[in-house]
Amino acid sequence: MEVAQVLHMNGGRGEKSYAENSLVQRKVISITMRIAEEAITNIYSSTFPTSLAIADLGCSSGPNTLYAVSELVKVVDEVRRKLGHQSPEYQVLLNDLPGNDFNAIFKSLAGFQENLKKQMGDGFGPCFFAGVPGSFYCRLFRAKSLHFVHSSYSLMWLSRVPEGLEGNKGNIYMASTSPPSVLKAYYMQFQTDFTLFLKCRSEELVAGGRMVLTILGRKSEDPSSKECCYIWELLAVALNDMVLEGIIEEEKFDSFNIPQYTPSPFEVETQVKKEGSFTIDRLEVSQVNWNAYDNEVHQSGAFEDGGYNVARCMRAVAEPLLVSHFGEAIIDEVFSRYGEIVASRMSKEKTEFVNVTVSVTRKG
Amino acid sequence: MEVAQVLHMNGGRGEKSYAENSLVQRKVISITMRIAEEAITNIYSSTFPTSLAIADLGCSSGPNTLYAVSELVKVVDEVRRKLGHQSPEYQVLLNDLPGNDFNAIFKSLAGFQENLKKQMGDGFGPCFFAGVPGSFYCRLFRAKSLHFVHSSYSLMWLSRVPEGLEGNKGNIYMASTSPPSVLKAYYMQFQTDFTLFLKCRSEELVAGGRMVLTILGRKSEDPSSKECCYIWELLAVALNDMVLEGIIEEEKFDSFNIPQYTPSPFEVETQVKKEGSFTIDRLEVSQVNWNAYDNEVHQSGAFEDGGYNVARCMRAVAEPLLVSHFGEAIIDEVFSRYGEIVASRMSKEKTEFVNVTVSVTRKG
Repeated sequence: MEVAQVLHMNGGRGEKSYAENSLVQRKVISITMRIAEEAITNIYSSTFPTSLAIADLGCSSGPNTLYAVSELVKVVDEVRRKLGHQSPEYQVLLNDLPGNDFNAIFKSLAGFQENLKKQMGDGFGPCFFAGVPGSFYCRLFRAKSLHFVHSSYSLMWLSRVPEGLEGNKGNIYMASTSPPSVLKAYYMQFQTDFTLFLKCRSEELVAGGRMVLTILGRKSEDPSSKECCYIWELLAVALNDMVLEGIIEEEKFDSFNIPQYTPSPFEVETQVKKEGSFTIDRLEVSQVNWNAYDNEVHQSGAFEDGGYNVARCMRAVAEPLLVSHFGEAIIDEVFSRYGEIVASRMSKEKTEFVNVTVSVTRKG
Repeated sequence: MEVAQVLHMNGGRGEKSYAENSLVQRKVISITMRIAEEAITNIYSSTFPTSLAIADLGCSSGPNTLYAVSELVKVVDEVRRKLGHQSPEYQVLLNDLPGNDFNAIFKSLAGFQENLKKQMGDGFGPCFFAGVPGSFYCRLFRAKSLHFVHSSYSLMWLSRVPEGLEGNKGNIYMASTSPPSVLKAYYMQFQTDFTLFLKCRSEELVAGGRMVLTILGRKSEDPSSKECCYIWELLAVALNDMVLEGIIEEEKFDSFNIPQYTPSPFEVETQVKKEGSFTIDRLEVSQVNWNAYDNEVHQSGAFEDGGYNVARCMRAVAEPLLVSHFGEAIIDEVFSRYGEIVASRMSKEKTEFVNVTVSVTRKG
């Protein structure tokens, strides 16, 4: 499986689209926004560039795509107004893998820009948008052309399924039953990928440029910790049941592994320091409930709906990967079973995603 | 009708797609390429920028999208090799209206980039791509950020259907039977739009930056000349027949007009001089047969196939406009009739498109 060719959030605006099933990811952006706001305020206020280039890496397609960027632009505009400066030209660069639904983003841009202009009033902008398709494990932008990089819930995706996972039978991700060789293979891939990411961005950011990355991760130093692996373990349960019932071939199941790594804050810190281009300004951990609707108004029956919501969210994220490996036919059944399993677990324990956020500055 | 929302070439890769029916447009790029090559060689050789930004405006989606750009990049690389310079970083900016099929472009990019690398060998690039959705009658790029702008067969599209075309009964474009007020309304819209285009680009190009524009046009000073209007007149014949047969409402027909203007070299020159930001380096006229397959190897039955080919090409270009006004239902019928009418005319006379190419330099 070529991850860069296969991986993308479900496109369009339909029931199973990422656009309609990405409230968790929105909450994560919202929770971590103050860190990003602080960082962009810092880079803007220290240099007052006439042109400010912001890249969002792994922008996806849906209501979240322009959410972070619009908040960031608003913060900068507030600062420049207070200080009586002219607005910079904003260059917003939206990146994701080539399978992402850029058409949907582009069709929504005119309306978005109009609203932004209205909200911000006279003297704002101009604000230019571009879509940049490609893996962020490659160079994507010209040298020293970016002031700020934002990425949320994207960097846990690896560039490939690690090599050497043959021993990971019965699992589709790191799990408590994974042999040490599997955990090591996953960690090594993360180290390689994240280092490459940092190197590419270090070339693209101006000196003093800032970067705020939020990665689905864990608090524990155990890479097979339940806090990061459970969500995939439950999907493995659903797939395993279908193997036992003869719906999925065992060999097919055994050769499927999720190209993801959910790092600890320490692992993120270690890699940033090792790579050497950035200083760390902040390193924080936050949590968000699996069921994004958990704290919303309608609490009645939240657990039952919760399982369904979480399964839909995970489907919007993982469906292309599963289809590429198992084919289209079994997908409805997989996520129907998964929803039930998730609902059952959620009724018995607290289930949360852990977010690792790191805010860094490009060394001068 | 909001032209910017409606106008786009037929997407995808299917039988009716622009990608499969754009050989004429490819020939035009090919015919005029030496002018573009001369211009980009000039801007590169006079400044040797470390980063070279090339924008293609109205890039569409299909084999033509990256054709011009790849030729331009090759020319620059040849020059820099001869002179022993390091390769600049290339920034390729692909612009079209938001309805364009950018997803298809983006999915083809990885393969394209790989091929380009292979062809160009060591020392080439890097070459970064971005998609920029939006009307080129607005600012699209940061100030002074472009070195070279290319646009082929796009600028005849107006930003809107001109006001004051009520008198254009029986026609869908300028025609010999159009009253002077209609011809004037079209020309005024062209003047407004083209001036705005020049103004926007003058802000985006660096001093000395170059621009090569090829516009579907005419040689004659008569805006209703057959050489530019006949292709639409024949479509009007098909539509008119369907009005007479009660398939299309007369009122619907009378209120439909193509948002296009096919200027003469003199009109292009006049507008460039009036706007004042650019000097004209070249102003040339070329021709290309309606039937792009005309000079190809298989000549047998070329006229019959020709009508079919031309109708398919025009359908790939105009279908979204027609669907937006007349609805989906009549489209097959319209283009089937159109194909027959075109074939019949092509068997009786020489039918060619006229291309006006202007090469300009941003004043310092």
